Amino acid sequence: MTKNELDIADLLDRIGQVVGDAARPVPLHEPRFDGAERDYVLETIDTGWVSSVGRFVNRFESDLAEICQVPYVVATGTGTAALHVALLLAGVQPGEEVLLPSLTFIATANAVKYCDAVPHFCDSEMDSFGIDPGKLDAYLRDIVVLRNGVSFNKVTGNRIAALVPVHIFGHPAKIDELAELSTRWSIPLVEDSTEALGSKLNGRPVGHHGLLSTLSFNGNKIVTTGGGGAILTADPDLAKRAKHLTTTAKVPHAWRFDHDAVGYNYRLTNISAALGVAQLERLPVFVDAKRRLAERYMTTFDGFAGGRILREPSGAESNYWLNTLILDEGCEGLQEDVLQAANDAGFMVRPLWTPMHRLPMFKGAPAMDLSVCESLSARVVNLPSSPGLELSRAG
Amino acid sequence: MTKNELDIADLLDRIGQVVGDAARPVPLHEPRFDGAERDYVLETIDTGWVSSVGRFVNRFESDLAEICQVPYVVATGTGTAALHVALLLAGVQPGEEVLLPSLTFIATANAVKYCDAVPHFCDSEMDSFGIDPGKLDAYLRDIVVLRNGVSFNKVTGNRIAALVPVHIFGHPAKIDELAELSTRWSIPLVEDSTEALGSKLNGRPVGHHGLLSTLSFNGNKIVTTGGGGAILTADPDLAKRAKHLTTTAKVPHAWRFDHDAVGYNYRLTNISAALGVAQLERLPVFVDAKRRLAERYMTTFDGFAGGRILREPSGAESNYWLNTLILDEGCEGLQEDVLQAANDAGFMVRPLWTPMHRLPMFKGAPAMDLSVCESLSARVVNLPSSPGLELSRAG
Repeated sequence: MTKNELDIADLLDRIGQVVGDAARPVPLHEPRFDGAERDYVLETIDTGWVSSVGRFVNRFESDLAEICQVPYVVATGTGTAALHVALLLAGVQPGEEVLLPSLTFIATANAVKYCDAVPHFCDSEMDSFGIDPGKLDAYLRDIVVLRNGVSFNKVTGNRIAALVPVHIFGHPAKIDELAELSTRWSIPLVEDSTEALGSKLNGRPVGHHGLLSTLSFNGNKIVTTGGGGAILTADPDLAKRAKHLTTTAKVPHAWRFDHDAVGYNYRLTNISAALGVAQLERLPVFVDAKRRLAERYMTTFDGFAGGRILREPSGAESNYWLNTLILDEGCEGLQEDVLQAANDAGFMVRPLWTPMHRLPMFKGAPAMDLSVCESLSARVVNLPSSPGLELSRAG
Repeated sequence: MTKNELDIADLLDRIGQVVGDAARPVPLHEPRFDGAERDYVLETIDTGWVSSVGRFVNRFESDLAEICQVPYVVATGTGTAALHVALLLAGVQPGEEVLLPSLTFIATANAVKYCDAVPHFCDSEMDSFGIDPGKLDAYLRDIVVLRNGVSFNKVTGNRIAALVPVHIFGHPAKIDELAELSTRWSIPLVEDSTEALGSKLNGRPVGHHGLLSTLSFNGNKIVTTGGGGAILTADPDLAKRAKHLTTTAKVPHAWRFDHDAVGYNYRLTNISAALGVAQLERLPVFVDAKRRLAERYMTTFDGFAGGRILREPSGAESNYWLNTLILDEGCEGLQEDVLQAANDAGFMVRPLWTPMHRLPMFKGAPAMDLSVCESLSARVVNLPSSPGLELSRAG
């Protein structure tokens, strides 16, 4: 096999070995409801507590706080809503700049736009696919001027208001190094942990480095509420303000409707939370299943000519939200053929999200050199990753 | 009884007669799940289709289209989201002004702010509590200058980008007259029908006058999805764009993630829609029950010295979402006493929302004379209005 070739039939055969007798088409990621989902959801209907108040919302928040080992959790209607409010609470103002990876799902960049702020794109590194702290450090030294302890972009004159690392596909980013940069440059850290519930770094769940951190419970995540998200923080005042801003900034009163700020209708509903509480009870089982599935991908693709499976970074225990095949350099031109052939064969694989800096609404946004992001974008194929692929396996 | 007095004990006694043996405290409005809610919701769990795609989302939209007699419906995660996107699609740009009543729930005004536009507050009339078209007409003649067929505020120089009437408490506003003003002044009409599902004017459901119209299915509405909303329109292009903007502006493709605009994660989930489909099957029963409940309020408060129950406007069949006691002029100072006494007695009554122009974030916003809104704000008490108060009554 030459450098620019790969055996697509062999690739499909190996995917087939991993997914086994799962019905075709095999989704990229589907939820699994084998716990108390039905009982908890029916309870919300039978009691009438389906909307934005109820015992499951409270329990979902306290369960998440325990799982993530953070003091405060505020549940939201979507992960995007969590990102939006987290950025607002971090102090992002209109016209300011927010550092985030170009290699991420659209929600991270959209949340910046909802604040009328400017996304400023950073490159990624190969170990975790997260922001490259070394490259960011060099870049900040080049473009930032500190005035009274506040970082400004020398070129645009804008304040740099937040740094938003993303734990891509559940793999913890180099968050200690990024947190160090955040401190050194006085740029508040907001951690996008939307893909990483259940992932750990150095034995501790991700989501505690940021001033605020966010989770997502969309239908394709390791744990789902249908649609949902959460804001995590160690700061009681930020937690209180997160709750306030996500509940239309209504001032609590038995009957009066006063609001003291432009707020949002971003609260998770009790029926969604009921689903989420049942799902969280199964999280350890799902993480374990997904880690075993990832191990089987790695074993099965051992010796595959033309690509390799992304392994969790050193020190990390990843939830392996999405398994990832990285085609070798030189195979960029074959990515589309792989995607087409795999989907034709009933494996719903997909590429990386189109990098943010290539989307029309973010063209012209400030950015560092993005060569690693560009390269990965042409070489990554995400593979079917449902926990059920492991849990439903014939013993 | 003098003009400034009312017999609170008598008032409580009459509320008690209407709500009968309902358990105390009697909520202002609670949902009722006596249809196929459990079955439909369980179907979403059993099939795994709980998130933003599924048969119940589609059916919820087509059922609403039929009920509301509008060609296109796009379901959203909240009524606020529906308002936000409807304003964007009506063409509201940053810095432009949007006419809306000061007498409304906060979501109407917040949606304007989400567009970075300026709320411009209008007064209400006594028949429906909606925007007063005569007063608005006179006001527009005073403050508007037409340039190339476009309305601008003479004073601020801003374009007047939309007119947003609200059907308060389910009572159809004077929408024909308001639509006529919208046409005459070339100000796009966006109809806030969030409280008025099931209400009719001249035999036809409300929601078809606006370029776009919005519904809400929050937990306290006549029909609930936990949290949810919808955008109605007769324009296929606007419907397509509404769907696009509410689904992160993702360009449809089997595996590629391209987005062509800053979009929103505003789609209703299938599990919420399942609840909604079952609720819509019961809508005629709920409307009928709520209309009978309203009739009993009117009969029971007949002869009450100090106030009267708001009756549906001429030509309207209201869903009577919230029943409304209007204290007589002169009794303003007693509103708080009534609210306190009724809540103490286990009737969860409440006043009008604090008018928008009195909230800190909207102070200084442009506004016409708001004397009717001010007067109503000091005199309205909403009464317990759950459909179950009628449907659970001992025969």
